[in-house]
Amino acid sequence: MPTTPHSIDEFLQFLRFASISADSKFAPQMTDCAAWLQRKLSSIGLHAEVSPTQGQPVVLARNETKPGRPTVLIYGHYDVQPVDPLNLWQNDPFDPTIRDGVVNARGSSDNKGQIFAHILGVEAALKQGELPVNLIFLIEGEEEIGSPSLAPFLEAHKQELACDVVVISDSPMIAPGTPTLCYGLRGIQAIEITLRGPDKDLHSGMFGGAVLNPLTALARLLTTLHNPDYTVAIEGFYDQVRPLQPWESDAWKKLPYQEKEILAITGVPELDGEWAHTPLERLWARPTAEINGMWGGYQGEGSKTVIPSLAHAKLTFRLVPDQQPEEILALVEKHLRAHLPDSVKMEIEVGHGGAAYLADPHDKWGLAAQAALKVAFAGREPALIREGGSIPIVADFKRILGVDTLLLGLCLSNCNAHSPNETFPLSHLDVGSALNQELLRELAKA
Amino acid sequence: MPTTPHSIDEFLQFLRFASISADSKFAPQMTDCAAWLQRKLSSIGLHAEVSPTQGQPVVLARNETKPGRPTVLIYGHYDVQPVDPLNLWQNDPFDPTIRDGVVNARGSSDNKGQIFAHILGVEAALKQGELPVNLIFLIEGEEEIGSPSLAPFLEAHKQELACDVVVISDSPMIAPGTPTLCYGLRGIQAIEITLRGPDKDLHSGMFGGAVLNPLTALARLLTTLHNPDYTVAIEGFYDQVRPLQPWESDAWKKLPYQEKEILAITGVPELDGEWAHTPLERLWARPTAEINGMWGGYQGEGSKTVIPSLAHAKLTFRLVPDQQPEEILALVEKHLRAHLPDSVKMEIEVGHGGAAYLADPHDKWGLAAQAALKVAFAGREPALIREGGSIPIVADFKRILGVDTLLLGLCLSNCNAHSPNETFPLSHLDVGSALNQELLRELAKA
Repeated sequence: MPTTPHSIDEFLQFLRFASISADSKFAPQMTDCAAWLQRKLSSIGLHAEVSPTQGQPVVLARNETKPGRPTVLIYGHYDVQPVDPLNLWQNDPFDPTIRDGVVNARGSSDNKGQIFAHILGVEAALKQGELPVNLIFLIEGEEEIGSPSLAPFLEAHKQELACDVVVISDSPMIAPGTPTLCYGLRGIQAIEITLRGPDKDLHSGMFGGAVLNPLTALARLLTTLHNPDYTVAIEGFYDQVRPLQPWESDAWKKLPYQEKEILAITGVPELDGEWAHTPLERLWARPTAEINGMWGGYQGEGSKTVIPSLAHAKLTFRLVPDQQPEEILALVEKHLRAHLPDSVKMEIEVGHGGAAYLADPHDKWGLAAQAALKVAFAGREPALIREGGSIPIVADFKRILGVDTLLLGLCLSNCNAHSPNETFPLSHLDVGSALNQELLRELAKA
Repeated sequence: MPTTPHSIDEFLQFLRFASISADSKFAPQMTDCAAWLQRKLSSIGLHAEVSPTQGQPVVLARNETKPGRPTVLIYGHYDVQPVDPLNLWQNDPFDPTIRDGVVNARGSSDNKGQIFAHILGVEAALKQGELPVNLIFLIEGEEEIGSPSLAPFLEAHKQELACDVVVISDSPMIAPGTPTLCYGLRGIQAIEITLRGPDKDLHSGMFGGAVLNPLTALARLLTTLHNPDYTVAIEGFYDQVRPLQPWESDAWKKLPYQEKEILAITGVPELDGEWAHTPLERLWARPTAEINGMWGGYQGEGSKTVIPSLAHAKLTFRLVPDQQPEEILALVEKHLRAHLPDSVKMEIEVGHGGAAYLADPHDKWGLAAQAALKVAFAGREPALIREGGSIPIVADFKRILGVDTLLLGLCLSNCNAHSPNETFPLSHLDVGSALNQELLRELAKA
């Protein structure tokens, strides 16, 4: 069923809500958006409700639960990122504007377009008759602020949310027109370190040479994190890394996303990293130690000849199966303490951690997803990918509901999610609707 | 001549001017302070004038120039540092308050007390008769903002400021009650480097591992500046370093300023630096490579998983004789470029540079100063020191007027110059006045 003028009009209504979860002054818009979704989901024949959480409400919708068919939970979110800087937008971010079949609006790709495509698919299927599965829509309002209420909500509603598999469309396709199944995500462990040398900032002329500059100590300490070949130099760091399977390596080499594409997106002079691995292997299957922020001393104009008292760094370690965040944390702390000179003190503040995720794209759910993707994308072979980022909710679904997640990205990599001029091609509503219908059919057979 | 109640009263008048050069709203106070100084210097029998510069006026005063005696230029400054944070002061910084013989006021040590002691010495000598030298007082109003107008003023008045030696009291004594002659200063070369990796900040999950993080590149690059023993690892860096003379090493070992004192002042867990040199050697006679500021990425609360586009560092190299700033700059640039990976770009912004300064404390001026110090400090042997900082005006006097400078510090190391509750012992007016009279006598004989 091709998208109708009516469904496009509805999509634009959905996009007009300034449902920015990060800013409490948009609370009324959040409420209105959730209520609109609930009405929409009711109107297509589902039992829909707005369900309170510790934070923003969750919209839940389901068909009649019948035994003998799998239960599929489709997750999405109705909240969107803030819109600053507003002056870079071609149109008001909440006045969706269509140019050449592409809609420009905040949330168009992330995540309203992708979840609305699923809703359109279910609407079309219900017009034909019954759905082939027990369906649960779970559409939350706090994804852009880290989903703080979702895990407690899942815990509290474990029984009624029991399902066989989760479906999420909240990520890009590997290339335009390429059906994409993501079956793995990296985990993460964050820490912040502070080095303290002198008890106040010192004059670098009067004291330079006699005391260790905490910035020098920090640079040297952070340098110890890597070997010259960019492998991580922390003892034991790779002990639990599950080797990449040969089929993955082979499949990734054929993807339409390689050095040239990564160079174009990042704008770096050249790629760099672990020499023994391809760029995609390094992104998806190898752990990293990254400095996300580093600072100390004078940052203003001109110069101030100071030896600062303090030097700071924020680090994150991206993890792969089967590295455990708490084990990595212990190894990192041990490494940092072992390499710290006695002439500075160190404080370590532990940040958030989350395990990596890896499903088998060749299990029955994965094969069903691949089959559906192939039909929805006119016979093209699906790309089987992992992602380098971390999606904590996927780990939450696994941990609390005990189920795997099928990650089926429907937006383009240049969609400007989180940036000005976020876009979504209207044709992807059709693609996503078709994918949803094929997917539910295939999952029912799995 | 012991300090009289009248001269103390005059000193407090001098301290009441809020002559803050950094803030233009104090311009009237600057003008009033310069005029007050001109009246004071006239009243003691000198020919005094307020002389305009490109910036704040200079106060010049001189006796009658007579052939056959040396010309001595005593330099000082009437401008003071800002007073923030005001709430930490025990009294209004411009309402000088005497407690136990110590005056608490902004500028009391830096530099009003020290220059006023010289004025009192000249006043006392003139009451006895004629000065033994041709004297020039040059008291500027921009020292606390880097003396931007002084060098042009010296150039423009080269003839009338021609002299045989310069005297400056604008630095601490090495220990309370220890007469101190400083005969050397380190030079400096400042640069700022910026590393550029991706053309925008990247998500460290999506791209971490495939691109070099500019913060990692910066840490690694800055680490290459030092060897494990904290010597500077830049090729050729030490080629022009004049070896410390054995008498200096020996003399410094006996100074009442060693590891214990430096530990107490700096509050570091332990001293650190070039293993092959004592702390004082490292401070005064060895060059350094210091990071004065370093920054990039996310510095706010919590974490933001970013690979920043840019990473920055502000560096200064402290130089010793006979290192030349422009030669060191070339070596530093060569080193940084040689150690830069191809996967980031670097921009280098050159900052200010100034050569090191070294006089012979055993030449005739040095010996005269030592003799005067000994008398003024009741027979105690003067400490012969260098300083680790850089005083560009000393290089200006050498370069433009062709003369050496005697640096005779009269304040205490805990005087809180540039900090709240700046203090100066009233007794140091007597000491300084006596020193001035002895010094002019000795210089006349030299």
